[in-house]
Amino acid sequence: MKNISRNLTMLVDYYELTMGNGYFNAGMKDRIAYFDLYFRKNPDEGGYAIAAGLEQVVDYINDLHFDAEDIAYLRARGCFSEEFLHYLADFRFTGDVWAVPEGTVVFPGEPLITVRAPAIEAQFIETYLLLSLNHQCLIATKAARITRAAKGRGVSEFGSRRAQGADAAILGARAAYIGGVHSTACAVADQAFGVPAGGTMAHSWVQMFDSEYEAFLTYCKLYPNAPTLLVDTFNVLESGLPNAIKAFKECGITKCAVRIDSGDIAYLSRKIRKMLDEAGLPDCKIVASNSLDEYIIRGLLHQDAKIDAFGVGERLITAKSDPVFGGVYKLCAVEDAEGNITPKIKLSENVGKITTPHFKKVYRLFGRDTGKAEADLICVWDEVVDDTKPLEIFDPDNTWKTKTLENFRAEELLVPIFKNGKQVYELPTLQQIRANCQTSLESMWEEVKRFDNPHNYYVDLSQKLWDIKYGMIKTQKHKK
Amino acid sequence: MKNISRNLTMLVDYYELTMGNGYFNAGMKDRIAYFDLYFRKNPDEGGYAIAAGLEQVVDYINDLHFDAEDIAYLRARGCFSEEFLHYLADFRFTGDVWAVPEGTVVFPGEPLITVRAPAIEAQFIETYLLLSLNHQCLIATKAARITRAAKGRGVSEFGSRRAQGADAAILGARAAYIGGVHSTACAVADQAFGVPAGGTMAHSWVQMFDSEYEAFLTYCKLYPNAPTLLVDTFNVLESGLPNAIKAFKECGITKCAVRIDSGDIAYLSRKIRKMLDEAGLPDCKIVASNSLDEYIIRGLLHQDAKIDAFGVGERLITAKSDPVFGGVYKLCAVEDAEGNITPKIKLSENVGKITTPHFKKVYRLFGRDTGKAEADLICVWDEVVDDTKPLEIFDPDNTWKTKTLENFRAEELLVPIFKNGKQVYELPTLQQIRANCQTSLESMWEEVKRFDNPHNYYVDLSQKLWDIKYGMIKTQKHKK
Repeated sequence: MKNISRNLTMLVDYYELTMGNGYFNAGMKDRIAYFDLYFRKNPDEGGYAIAAGLEQVVDYINDLHFDAEDIAYLRARGCFSEEFLHYLADFRFTGDVWAVPEGTVVFPGEPLITVRAPAIEAQFIETYLLLSLNHQCLIATKAARITRAAKGRGVSEFGSRRAQGADAAILGARAAYIGGVHSTACAVADQAFGVPAGGTMAHSWVQMFDSEYEAFLTYCKLYPNAPTLLVDTFNVLESGLPNAIKAFKECGITKCAVRIDSGDIAYLSRKIRKMLDEAGLPDCKIVASNSLDEYIIRGLLHQDAKIDAFGVGERLITAKSDPVFGGVYKLCAVEDAEGNITPKIKLSENVGKITTPHFKKVYRLFGRDTGKAEADLICVWDEVVDDTKPLEIFDPDNTWKTKTLENFRAEELLVPIFKNGKQVYELPTLQQIRANCQTSLESMWEEVKRFDNPHNYYVDLSQKLWDIKYGMIKTQKHKK
Repeated sequence: MKNISRNLTMLVDYYELTMGNGYFNAGMKDRIAYFDLYFRKNPDEGGYAIAAGLEQVVDYINDLHFDAEDIAYLRARGCFSEEFLHYLADFRFTGDVWAVPEGTVVFPGEPLITVRAPAIEAQFIETYLLLSLNHQCLIATKAARITRAAKGRGVSEFGSRRAQGADAAILGARAAYIGGVHSTACAVADQAFGVPAGGTMAHSWVQMFDSEYEAFLTYCKLYPNAPTLLVDTFNVLESGLPNAIKAFKECGITKCAVRIDSGDIAYLSRKIRKMLDEAGLPDCKIVASNSLDEYIIRGLLHQDAKIDAFGVGERLITAKSDPVFGGVYKLCAVEDAEGNITPKIKLSENVGKITTPHFKKVYRLFGRDTGKAEADLICVWDEVVDDTKPLEIFDPDNTWKTKTLENFRAEELLVPIFKNGKQVYELPTLQQIRANCQTSLESMWEEVKRFDNPHNYYVDLSQKLWDIKYGMIKTQKHKK
């Protein structure tokens, strides 16, 4: 696999550095802090999201260091103490990290990553952790939605040219593959991550020849193994398709495809299917592209469009309809030298911005009969859910809404990734991550996955955690 | 400056490779092709866009090569001829490139880049050229809109954590600076490109201390030079602001700022201004953040919010309201061994997707009295506009709409960047690019720049080019 990573230590919000210098000079550098990375809202008013981006976080943390050039840059800024700069020269991550494995279905309000580390370290890694998770969760989630709309038909990721920078193209293809697309057009995503890459021709290929037929014939002779011809350079039904059929016939090719990238896709695809069948090419597939997303694909299939596979570009690679995955990274506890953990909370006029305090763990509760996930339960770190006994859970906002789970299985969502700065997690392969995503999606009820008014999956707090959180809200409000 | 670039030769749509292999094996590798990179629609229903991303294209082209690992990867795919792989081992760009300098105001339909090169080379660079321009034009344009809304107030780019990957954060900060923001939070964007970086504190700083006042006091003592305190961790008016005032007073600081990141920004800012003035802190600035963009900033100022500077995050770095800059790269001509240029056109059922054929140049026509840009005129490459004589231009769609320009100055928009594969363009500094953007924006009438129903800036075709284009449309339609 090609290595395309760079050291990204300096890809950091400047305030992480000014705060770091502050903690250092205020004598707080060794104070242990706990941070949670979580998000507040599912993209596209959907019912779930897909965790992705952890592998790049692991690479980033393993490679975390400042080189001489970085220190020189910071010194020239004139606002960091020499002692702090010396400290940075030997800076490494020494803390603990827990995270939800990539490909797992996740929900608002639950930690996707929890970090326990000396304050400066825990604070410093905020920017890149958020960037990586926000980007890849966004694209993996969008890809899961789009492949769901395609109902088993092939979906290829086509969006490099419209991606927001090189990493958006490459890691976007990776995340899209996790979420369920079958292939990408991005060659380096294959070379570096093993996302299967493919592609055939642009309009320019057709234009480069003296005639469309000559362009198709040349292509079929070069690539007789299932060629895909782009048939909309001039006129699909009157020129492109007849020329494609002629070229396939001339070369004796029956396993092949045509692609349409403009016009009325639903109408054209039905006409094309008929013409191909009449020409004795029932195995010729029809591929459609042109600003597709889950809504347009759903609409096309609803119109009985005869499409076998979709190429999806800009609306997947930018998650166009909702291009921000609003993950945040919030202090939830501090720990003193004796190991006593003090929960911390952030209040806000915006209720949705109030944090859930404390060092926590998350259980996913599956029905043993159905295999389906019924709820997630966020607990204090030292709580243990006993899944041999019935468990009453309740809505944290409307506490009178309760539900008793019986015959269920509890599984912890967060797994250890780093311990004392050492990676303790073996990174799964991309194929394993993708399979985990399929399994995790299958464990969710259809009602959670539908696009319109999905069921609000339960993410509840344990009684102990609820008491701590609402106790702190009351105290803080009265304290001022 | 820190070098953060990587070789991105393999960041290419796979079909560029299959087509390349095709041109090679069809004996067409030396055929000279002309491609235009242009876009079809201004973002956000606006009246203009800003050119950006060229510097990264120049770096990319200069660094274009396949290493042994790349060749081995391609060989293992089993669909490329050995002769083609040998050719790729020595692959370099040998063609010519013209482009609009970064920072220039540009409009739909006009080439931002024109490439003249052997077919394989011209085709191959498509993916990265589009990616780089699409990304940075998008963000530079959004930044120009946002800084316009701020009416001279400072705007800082805050979005790294919500960017779509590392390049989106770093090069997004670069593009935002070109478009007009004053600073960034992204440290490496400063280190690598000289975008001024800054930042102060997160909510976690406040939470890490036993009290908000202690957090503020510690910060003011550490950074007495114009500290910015974040005052919304608990309650802005009852806790954050009183504590900030107390800390400023205790340290004798009068040049300072407070930041609010939640709540009703318009209401809070007016209350804060009053309290600061009453406390004898008239020079304490108010900074606002929290999902801002040009529309919300305009709304805040319309409500007479008392804000001195804005921090803008996710909605700038992803161009959230319209996150795709739809640049395309289309064949417009081929050239035979004798140097004869044959224009090429792509028709489409979608009229907007019909290309403008031929090797072209673009003039911007400025009124000599006003200094303002009146129209752009796209001509065939060998035409020369004589700006000492009156010039009649006409709307290419409604040809009866004409306008005669007198007393104008014609300036070519595209400048030579590469000649025979050699860079002939001296890259301007980022400061020069940013200044070019300001100058170019100032040369546009206000009617072009307003957000709502902007004037449709004229981008016309010369009579010669119009005749060629519409002649080809007729012929192609009748040819079939």
